[in-house]
Amino acid sequence: MTRIVQKYGGSSVATAEHIKRVAGRIAARHREGAEVVVSVSAMGDTTDELLTLASRVSANPPPRELDVLLSTGEIVSSALLSMALHDLEVDAVSLSGPQAGIRTDSVYRKARIAGIDTARLERELAARRVVIVAGFQGLAENLDVTTLGRGASDTTAVALAAALRADACEIYTDVAGVFTADPRICPQARALRDIGYEEMLEMATTGARVMHARAVELGSLYGVDILVKSSFDALAPGTLIHRETTMELGNKVRGIAHQEHVSKVTVRGVPDRPGIAALIFEPLAQANISVDTIVQNASVDELTDLTFTVEPGDLDGALRVVNDAAAEIGARDVVWERDLGTVSVIGTGMASAPGYAARMFRTLFEAGINIEMISTSDIRITCVVASAQVADAVRALHAAFELDREPDQVTGARASGGGAGAA
Amino acid sequence: MTRIVQKYGGSSVATAEHIKRVAGRIAARHREGAEVVVSVSAMGDTTDELLTLASRVSANPPPRELDVLLSTGEIVSSALLSMALHDLEVDAVSLSGPQAGIRTDSVYRKARIAGIDTARLERELAARRVVIVAGFQGLAENLDVTTLGRGASDTTAVALAAALRADACEIYTDVAGVFTADPRICPQARALRDIGYEEMLEMATTGARVMHARAVELGSLYGVDILVKSSFDALAPGTLIHRETTMELGNKVRGIAHQEHVSKVTVRGVPDRPGIAALIFEPLAQANISVDTIVQNASVDELTDLTFTVEPGDLDGALRVVNDAAAEIGARDVVWERDLGTVSVIGTGMASAPGYAARMFRTLFEAGINIEMISTSDIRITCVVASAQVADAVRALHAAFELDREPDQVTGARASGGGAGAA
Repeated sequence: MTRIVQKYGGSSVATAEHIKRVAGRIAARHREGAEVVVSVSAMGDTTDELLTLASRVSANPPPRELDVLLSTGEIVSSALLSMALHDLEVDAVSLSGPQAGIRTDSVYRKARIAGIDTARLERELAARRVVIVAGFQGLAENLDVTTLGRGASDTTAVALAAALRADACEIYTDVAGVFTADPRICPQARALRDIGYEEMLEMATTGARVMHARAVELGSLYGVDILVKSSFDALAPGTLIHRETTMELGNKVRGIAHQEHVSKVTVRGVPDRPGIAALIFEPLAQANISVDTIVQNASVDELTDLTFTVEPGDLDGALRVVNDAAAEIGARDVVWERDLGTVSVIGTGMASAPGYAARMFRTLFEAGINIEMISTSDIRITCVVASAQVADAVRALHAAFELDREPDQVTGARASGGGAGAA
Repeated sequence: MTRIVQKYGGSSVATAEHIKRVAGRIAARHREGAEVVVSVSAMGDTTDELLTLASRVSANPPPRELDVLLSTGEIVSSALLSMALHDLEVDAVSLSGPQAGIRTDSVYRKARIAGIDTARLERELAARRVVIVAGFQGLAENLDVTTLGRGASDTTAVALAAALRADACEIYTDVAGVFTADPRICPQARALRDIGYEEMLEMATTGARVMHARAVELGSLYGVDILVKSSFDALAPGTLIHRETTMELGNKVRGIAHQEHVSKVTVRGVPDRPGIAALIFEPLAQANISVDTIVQNASVDELTDLTFTVEPGDLDGALRVVNDAAAEIGARDVVWERDLGTVSVIGTGMASAPGYAARMFRTLFEAGINIEMISTSDIRITCVVASAQVADAVRALHAAFELDREPDQVTGARASGGGAGAA
């Protein structure tokens, strides 16, 4: 028997009408004979509304209580979806994360799944019930409710698919899949047919909001194939995230990701000796400030410059911490810039093929876009540019790497074209 | 150490501001050194809003899923109240009904508490935490969430007080206690200083909405003294519900309860033989129709009339069932009346003192109110009257039994006056 895990995001269950439509889709799969387990997000803006409510009763709500509060959003939508299925004469049962056997660590607000006890899930499936699991939540060892972080219903779905050895894991969202770039700023962007885990991870962490990064990690770890599809457009084929990409011929760039707003902090004139970086980044971690790209320039006269990016909301906090640290280690000064963004070119094949970085830099140069900072990984090249130029940069790179063309249209000439730019 | 269980109703926690005010009150008690456990209802109209949402996704939502859905309302308010306490630097922890160890049977929507495992509650209290328990819910043996019926946060509070051997159980509501009659229709009504369990039960089941009837039953069973107080008027002393009433001198009537809308069904010409009543009321119970007052008139020629009242919303369903039953047992016909109400005089002492019934009937007669039906218990006399005359009846009876006077103002003459009416 085919076993499917599906996930529906908040926009897919935003209203009673949406929920009934989703129920119809689930019912169809159930009637075809599949075993269906569903992970569901809170309706529409519920989570934000609950956070607002919390901010009205407390200046600094304790994370444990925030998790109790936020977990109710997914319980509501899971119960409603189960009701809508019963209305279609499909036997269904809603389970909270704890009831579904999802065990986590005790880190409130961003707990990690420790394991899933599938006994109840298997029992409900054996009774031919559709199982609706409230996404985004689990149970810590002390029997407290935990949540897994914003967008983590994806993670719930992939973890369920792994634990239940499902044949498929389908993530339904409000877009038609993983795009070569954000279609809102790049109209030529198209949905990819497939993408590798690592590429998807780089896309997710550098701005493509379509999937929760931890869900992709988990998929990679357990080899769960993840199909990302639109819940509004049944005909769109969606994007398959899996281990072996089908290697779209010739074009080793899979997509352009971007972040519209980042801030950059540079500690200048840092004495270049071991342990210095830790003295800067440990206090940032303790202040719970998440640091993105880090670049250290080459040493001159035993002095170096250390640059990193943070979310704009974290800039003030980061400066407080870093100014103290800079004084302590005897750095010259700390400078910062606020109105920046990033643009990233991502593709597994790039590492083994020369010229991608050069082509990226030339494209930006020709578009009149100055590069403030560069960082690369095996499968990604990221440039920090002015925030106002991010959209132009995405469009220029999308065109330069010919991402608007379907892969089978790419000619042989272009197949080696990845290296055609000035190296 | 003093141990207190408090309950705050939906109107007491309707907004963030309300929740902060309630938190202030709890914090004060905690700082005085008391151990405080709180049962809290859902905010304002949350439960009705959730029911509306359910009706939009399903014509007939399964009770199990309704319980999952409805239980979230109290979880939200418990988490928010705990946050508000933390904001006042009071250590607090919110627990769902299941987390608080409240075990129930598996009758969804109106589960009964089977027992409370107090281990976690005691552990949290020992750590000097205020414990906020989501009211109205528990955990069935199959680990499903259940709810205890509308208004059952009262029941949660009394059950917690019994299980924790609390020194006091305080029910905070939007009125200043248990009134001699509904102040909205009888301006002379005053809050009672105390009332017995049985009297309170009769008040609760015949229309006084201030307390959940099952909470009073439980209080009676475990000897929990229950103080009903206003959460808006700290100075009002409230009403103590307990076993030994302080016997307000002379006046054996404690209050007038009423129901504005009931319907009456009469099966006429019923063959008067054993088992007939069961043939009528069993199918009503199977159809889940709750029957209120039942009266059987004296037999004439081996034929009798059977009359009962139901909620107006149940009238059509009751008629369907009863018409079938009447045909089966060979009764003459079924007649019914819709626009009726009830008015009840309640007081423990009445049974042993003559003349209360007579005074009630004379008072209604002098007010020009026709009595459609009469039913009595040891401590209650109920008359069914026209719906439009219910308010007049309440006011007339409140005056006739001198309930507007504080007990210590009642003179010796009136002390025996209960029997002064024509018997």
